[in-house]
Amino acid sequence: MDAPVDLMATLELLDEPWRPGVVARCNDAKLAVAKLHGTFVWHAHEDTDDCFLVLRGRVVIELRGRPDVELAEGQLFVVPRGAEHRPRADEPAWVLLIEREGTVNTGDAQASDLTAPERRL
Amino acid sequence: MDAPVDLMATLELLDEPWRPGVVARCNDAKLAVAKLHGTFVWHAHEDTDDCFLVLRGRVVIELRGRPDVELAEGQLFVVPRGAEHRPRADEPAWVLLIEREGTVNTGDAQASDLTAPERRL
Repeated sequence: MDAPVDLMATLELLDEPWRPGVVARCNDAKLAVAKLHGTFVWHAHEDTDDCFLVLRGRVVIELRGRPDVELAEGQLFVVPRGAEHRPRADEPAWVLLIEREGTVNTGDAQASDLTAPERRL
Repeated sequence: MDAPVDLMATLELLDEPWRPGVVARCNDAKLAVAKLHGTFVWHAHEDTDDCFLVLRGRVVIELRGRPDVELAEGQLFVVPRGAEHRPRADEPAWVLLIEREGTVNTGDAQASDLTAPERRL
């Protein structure tokens, strides 16, 4: 049985942006925290919805062909599977991500420096 | 595509304790908020892990044959499937729950006044 997780304490373990760290697993989902800063890459996940809960700061989820979604602390948004999106944080921000195990952060985009190996915090 | 959810605002929609309200779905998981106050019933979920993230207040998860897990704001704990547990909140507390769709709040315990129909907030 896993120990309890203090989410705010795990944020201190994140150094670089766009490098999620898994803090728990629940059924077939991984729960990961990530620091966001700057603009990510356009991508979609064909096999998983992608839930963002903002823990600190502000995050914009750009969606292809739709208005941006702006998220403040305590706000969450589920990007449906298949929806092309690009997260952005003009100032450093921290999120809890809920997505299916095995999800690659850059989805269907070509692997790049932004593609992060899965790691457990 | 669902709208963003302001978790703290959804808490204001909860009146009675132990009556979760679903605020989002992500893959086969439902995300629900709930007010907890008092002591729930001992139960287990044979088919689903049960993730508690405390949004406001303090929650104790009693576990059969194991030390209690005490959770403050911003702390989360995953009760593994099959583990008999009993949540408790000595003062009113509010949580985000992540569990498989279709999960009944009282699990394998006999249906009672505490057994809540699933509702969307």
